[in-house]
Amino acid sequence: MAKIAILGFGTVGSGVYEVLCRNAAGVSHRAGEPVEVKYILDPKDFSDHPAAKLFIKNFDAILEDPEVKVVVETIGGTRFAYPYVKACLESGRSVCTSNKEMVATYGAELLALAKAHNCAFLFEASVGGGTPIITPMHQCLAANVITEVEGIVNGTTNFMLTKMAREDLGFDEALKIAQELGYAETRDPGDDVDGRDACRKIAILSSLVCGHQIYPQNIPTRGIRDITVDDVAAAEKLGCVIKLIAWMKRGEEGSVAAGVEPCLVPKANQLAGVDDVFNAVLVKGDMLGDVVFYGKGAGKLPTASAVVADVVDALKNGVKVHDSLFWQPAEPVEGMLTDPAPAAYYVRVEGIAPAVAEAIYGKGHVVEEHFDGCSYFVDSADGKALAEAARKVEAMGGSVKLVLRRLPEDV
Amino acid sequence: MAKIAILGFGTVGSGVYEVLCRNAAGVSHRAGEPVEVKYILDPKDFSDHPAAKLFIKNFDAILEDPEVKVVVETIGGTRFAYPYVKACLESGRSVCTSNKEMVATYGAELLALAKAHNCAFLFEASVGGGTPIITPMHQCLAANVITEVEGIVNGTTNFMLTKMAREDLGFDEALKIAQELGYAETRDPGDDVDGRDACRKIAILSSLVCGHQIYPQNIPTRGIRDITVDDVAAAEKLGCVIKLIAWMKRGEEGSVAAGVEPCLVPKANQLAGVDDVFNAVLVKGDMLGDVVFYGKGAGKLPTASAVVADVVDALKNGVKVHDSLFWQPAEPVEGMLTDPAPAAYYVRVEGIAPAVAEAIYGKGHVVEEHFDGCSYFVDSADGKALAEAARKVEAMGGSVKLVLRRLPEDV
Repeated sequence: MAKIAILGFGTVGSGVYEVLCRNAAGVSHRAGEPVEVKYILDPKDFSDHPAAKLFIKNFDAILEDPEVKVVVETIGGTRFAYPYVKACLESGRSVCTSNKEMVATYGAELLALAKAHNCAFLFEASVGGGTPIITPMHQCLAANVITEVEGIVNGTTNFMLTKMAREDLGFDEALKIAQELGYAETRDPGDDVDGRDACRKIAILSSLVCGHQIYPQNIPTRGIRDITVDDVAAAEKLGCVIKLIAWMKRGEEGSVAAGVEPCLVPKANQLAGVDDVFNAVLVKGDMLGDVVFYGKGAGKLPTASAVVADVVDALKNGVKVHDSLFWQPAEPVEGMLTDPAPAAYYVRVEGIAPAVAEAIYGKGHVVEEHFDGCSYFVDSADGKALAEAARKVEAMGGSVKLVLRRLPEDV
Repeated sequence: MAKIAILGFGTVGSGVYEVLCRNAAGVSHRAGEPVEVKYILDPKDFSDHPAAKLFIKNFDAILEDPEVKVVVETIGGTRFAYPYVKACLESGRSVCTSNKEMVATYGAELLALAKAHNCAFLFEASVGGGTPIITPMHQCLAANVITEVEGIVNGTTNFMLTKMAREDLGFDEALKIAQELGYAETRDPGDDVDGRDACRKIAILSSLVCGHQIYPQNIPTRGIRDITVDDVAAAEKLGCVIKLIAWMKRGEEGSVAAGVEPCLVPKANQLAGVDDVFNAVLVKGDMLGDVVFYGKGAGKLPTASAVVADVVDALKNGVKVHDSLFWQPAEPVEGMLTDPAPAAYYVRVEGIAPAVAEAIYGKGHVVEEHFDGCSYFVDSADGKALAEAARKVEAMGGSVKLVLRRLPEDV
C-alpha cells in the first residue's frame, strides 16, 4: 500500500483525487501496489467534502508521517510550492507536480535534490497538460540527440487564434469569449496572451534537451496582442494560419536558441491543423526525424491523469528516472537566446507607402495595402536585416506594427 | 558495462548497431552504464564489415555467455525469431524486438515468459516504427482506461494513397512508384496493400488495451486494392481523403471490436493531414480525451532508435515494466470482432442506376454517376443495413464494388 499526499486542492489537485478514485484498480495494478491518498493540504474549508477527514492545514504532518511515499504538488506558483517541494525531496519523498513556473525556475535544483535524496521529481503535467511529452522525450527518444522542439503549448491563445481565424474576430472579442468560457483569466490574462505561460513550458523542454537550466527570462517572448483581423486575413492569403509557437533549436557546438512568438504556419505543416484548446509539440531527433505529440493541453482530468501516471512512475522506478530526466544548474545568460537563421517574414507597417516598403524590405511582395501602410511578405531575412529595415521605416516616419516569421512547409 | 547481442543484421538490425555507435554517449548515460554490442548473429558473410569480429553464426554462443544481458531480435517473421526469443527469455535475458508478426501471434506467451524469468520483453518498434506509441500508452496513460484506438499505421499504403490523391493516379501506378522507391516489396506487396501489416499492429495495440491476446485472424481486414481514381475524386467532393485506418474500440462490459479498412476521413479530422510515409495513432483515454502520436512509421534509423530506447528501458527497469506492459493469453474467438455502431458510408455500385441505388440505400445522396452505376453517400447505416442493401443490389443484377466508412469530423 502506497500512501500519498496532495498539496493544494484546486482544479488539478481535486482532479488527481478524482482520477485516483475513479481508476483505482488500473492505477494500483500498474503501480504494483494499491495507491491511497492519506492527506490533502489546503487552507480552505472542506469540512463538507466526502473525504473531509483527509484534509489538513499543517504541512508538517505530512513530513512527520513515514507512511507517505509520494507527494503531489498542485498549489501552483512558487511562494508555497517551492519550499514545500524542497522539504519533501529532502526527506526522501518523491514529488509529482504540474507546476510549470516552479520547474522553469528551480528545475535543476529540485532535480539535484531528488537525486541526492534517492527519490523522484516528476513533472509530465507541466507541459502539454495530459498529453505525454516529457516522458517520451527523455525515455522513448533516449537513443536520439534532440536538435529542435517546436510547438503550440498554450491552449488559451490557440483557442483565441482559432476563433479569430474562423469567425473574423479581433483580439479583444476573442479574449472576451475565452474569458467567458473560463479558458482565460478574467483579471489578468497576461500569462496566456503575452506568452509567459508558453515561455515557461519551452524553458522546461529546452532545459531537458540541453542538459542545463534554460531560464524563461532569456527566451525572447511575444504574445498575440498585436494580431488583428487584417493579419489573419493576410495569413490566409499566404496559405497560412497564425499560431503562437514556442520553439528551441540546438546549433553547432552546443549553442541554443529559443523563443515564443506568433508565426505564420503554412497549411501543409502539421501544426497548422492544431485548433481550439489543443496543444501539439514537434520534436526532431537525429535518428528519428520528426515526431509530434498532440492532445488537450489543459483541463482538470487530463492534467490530473498525467500527474497520476507520474505517481505510478515514482513508485515503480524512483530515482532511476533521473538517469535520463535531468539537467544541470546554470546561471542565466546575458541577453537573449535569439536565432540568427534566415527565414521568410510577414511584416505590417504603418505610415509608409507599399512602394516604399518594397524598396526597404527588398525581395518579396505586398500582401495587402492598408489606408496607412501595407502588409509585406519578405522572402528571406534574418534578425539583423529586419532590425535594419525597421530603422529605415522609422527614418521615413513610419513604424513596424507586426513581424511574423513563417515556419517551413514540411512536417 | 552492459553487453548485448543482435539477432539478424538486416535493415533494422544494422540500424541498431549504427545508433548504438553514433549516440553511444547519450545511450550509456541514460542506461546508467556503457552499452556494448558483443555478438551479431547472421548467417550471411560479414567478414569485410568493420565489426567483422562480432559476427557469429551459432545462436548457442549467445545463450552460453553470461555477460549478455539484453538481446535485440530483428530477424523478422516467426520461424527463427520465435524459438530464439523464447530461449533468451527462458535464460533470463531481456529481449527487445521490432517484430510485429511475432508479437501479434505470441505476445501473451512471451510476456508471461519474461515475467516468469524476471526479465523484460519490449517491442516499441513493432508499431509506428520510431514513433513512441506503446510506451506512452501503457506508462503515460497509466491513469486512464483506454476506450478507443484509431490510426494510420502502414506507411506504404499511406504513401500510395497520398500519391493517388495528389497526382490522380490509380492503384497500380501508385504501387509501381512505391516499389521503385523501396517502400513496397516488389515480389509480394500484399502484406502492405492488403492490410496484413496494419492488422498485426492493431492486434498488438488491441491486446495491450484489452489485457488479453487479440489475434490478427479475428480482425476484419481489407486493404486498398479496390480504391480507384474515381473514389479518390468522390472523397474530395465529400470533403474527405481516403486513408487505411486500423482501429479498435472497447464497448460496454469488456466487448471489443477492431478492424483494418480504408475509410473516408473528413479533412477536419487530425488523421486527414497525415501524408506520405507518416503514421499517426489516436488514443482515447477516459480521463485524458484524445491524444495523437505522429511520426515516421518506418525507416532504418527511426525504427532502430526505438529498439535502442527499449534496450535502455530493459537495462534500467527490467521486469518491472510488465506491471503495465502485459496481456493475458486467450484463445482466438469464433468469427470476427465487428463493430455494430452506425456510421456514414460511401458505396460504389455497378450495374444499377443511381435512382435504384437511392431507393435501396435510402437517406443520402448520389455523389457521382458512372456509365455503369454510381457512387452513393449513405447518411447512416450499420453492418446489417449494408448487408441487406448489398443483397438488394445483387438481386437487381448489380454489384457493390466498394464500401468506405466515414470517420467522425472531430479530432
